[in-house]
Amino acid sequence: MEFRIIKSPSEGTLDILRRRMGTNCKTDLDSADAIGLVQGRMIEMICAADIAEKAVGVTVEDVRGSCPQNMILIAIFGDTASVESAIKEIKIKMEEGKTL
Amino acid sequence: MEFRIIKSPSEGTLDILRRRMGTNCKTDLDSADAIGLVQGRMIEMICAADIAEKAVGVTVEDVRGSCPQNMILIAIFGDTASVESAIKEIKIKMEEGKTL
Amino acid sequence: MEFRIIKSPSEGTLDILRRRMGTNCKTDLDSADAIGLVQGRMIEMICAADIAEKAVGVTVEDVRGSCPQNMILIAIFGDTASVESAIKEIKIKMEEGKTL
Amino acid sequence: MEFRIIKSPSEGTLDILRRRMGTNCKTDLDSADAIGLVQGRMIEMICAADIAEKAVGVTVEDVRGSCPQNMILIAIFGDTASVESAIKEIKIKMEEGKTL
Amino acid sequence: MEFRIIKSPSEGTLDILRRRMGTNCKTDLDSADAIGLVQGRMIEMICAADIAEKAVGVTVEDVRGSCPQNMILIAIFGDTASVESAIKEIKIKMEEGKTL
Amino acid sequence: MEFRIIKSPSEGTLDILRRRMGTNCKTDLDSADAIGLVQGRMIEMICAADIAEKAVGVTVEDVRGSCPQNMILIAIFGDTASVESAIKEIKIKMEEGKTL
Repeated sequence: MEFRIIKSPSEGTLDILRRRMGTNCKTDLDSADAIGLVQGRMIEMICAADIAEKAVGVTVEDVRGSCPQNMILIAIFGDTASVESAIKEIKIKMEEGKTL
Repeated sequence: MEFRIIKSPSEGTLDILRRRMGTNCKTDLDSADAIGLVQGRMIEMICAADIAEKAVGVTVEDVRGSCPQNMILIAIFGDTASVESAIKEIKIKMEEGKTL
Repeated sequence: MEFRIIKSPSEGTLDILRRRMGTNCKTDLDSADAIGLVQGRMIEMICAADIAEKAVGVTVEDVRGSCPQNMILIAIFGDTASVESAIKEIKIKMEEGKTL
Repeated sequence: MEFRIIKSPSEGTLDILRRRMGTNCKTDLDSADAIGLVQGRMIEMICAADIAEKAVGVTVEDVRGSCPQNMILIAIFGDTASVESAIKEIKIKMEEGKTL
Repeated sequence: MEFRIIKSPSEGTLDILRRRMGTNCKTDLDSADAIGLVQGRMIEMICAADIAEKAVGVTVEDVRGSCPQNMILIAIFGDTASVESAIKEIKIKMEEGKTL
Repeated sequence: MEFRIIKSPSEGTLDILRRRMGTNCKTDLDSADAIGLVQGRMIEMICAADIAEKAVGVTVEDVRGSCPQNMILIAIFGDTASVESAIKEIKIKMEEGKTL
């Protein structure tokens, strides 16, 4: 899994994300202070999305949308502190989940 | 093969799964207590789906739906105990099947 | 190449196969006692399909159908003994064919 | 590159090939005694197709048709001797072409 | 990540880029003195696009457009000095971002 | 990067190329004495196309057309000497470009 955080994303970056999320996107991207990006294998990303969804102050989107590949990317939108804390949560809980 | 279990899946996680399962999905996702995820090569996943289908208390869905790739993901829905036991069954029987 | 045999396939497993074989499927899946699965590179699978087609008591289907990838999967339907013997035949003849 | 020859192909095998060649196929498959299959990277396969096209007694088809991938497969149809000689030609000429 | 700069791009090169960027392209390609190309994994490319968007004198486009793959390419258009400086910025900031 | 030259391409080979280039093709393939093929990663191929476009006596086409993958193929059409000189140019200039 790989992680990146973009603070104060530019309008062009939001455009690229919008085009790749298609019409399923339920988040108002313009109000997001920060974007957390998490990329990994599909099975991991569904678990990561669930962990982030249960964190406070963030919304989660599946970036690929209509053309699923094995390796996918999720974006986590919110204020910087919430995005950082959601990503921290993912790192901890996914590590625990490996013992399954 | 990789295995993950999500307990009390969030609404957003169910949405991601719903979008990737398309209209073929026969399970009422909202009533599932837990989701078992199994990812592997297609030939393994068809066998794994068959083992889970024969287990009690769970339903099985092919997550990718319309755009098959070599590596696919199945989701097993049910109460936590049933999902855990179906995944245990898959691990045991797939190991046996290797001797073919 | 990888091989698996599913005896008395569940209805859900047949559904997954049906959805991935599309409308080209000429076999009555419900009457099959067993399913042999063979996965490999496309060139091998066309040869394997030909060997199985020439075996008795089985029919052969191309599981991927509409979206060909480099790695494909064929399913061999019939009673358990016929499926097992078709798969044995594939193993022997493909080994011989390597000397080409 | 990989090579395989199927002698007296079964009707089911011709069906799999027909479905994957789409409507661009100009060869009458039913009159072919043998099928030569050559699989490799796209750049090699275009050269291989050209070599086979210039050989006598065979026709060449691009098996993938509508959904090109990096790795593709061509089929060479004709009587057994012509197919074998076309494949021999490909092996020799492609080896020479490497010195480019 | 890989980087290339094309100075005074030919009309044919702009055509290839135009076809692959689809109708989402907001840049007037004909007025670009230079094109910076950056290729990498999707998560990196979204960050790289954000860095370039925040640089002066350039616009950024997602070359793949409609059919996202895991590995994508962005193009940075502008005068040569601006493109070179945007690419330099990407190299420096992406290196810093690794410490996340 | 890989390079191949086909001299006096057969009609069947031109057909395979035509089908894979779609309706964007601006070259009259029938008047080409030779075809130069160059396969590589997308970022390299856009640079290679630009180098060939700036060479004399050749036209360049993007073979994949509608379904871009990470690895793509360009075809260079012209008389044999021009195609050979364009490919030589690509080899030299791409090597220089690596120092970026």
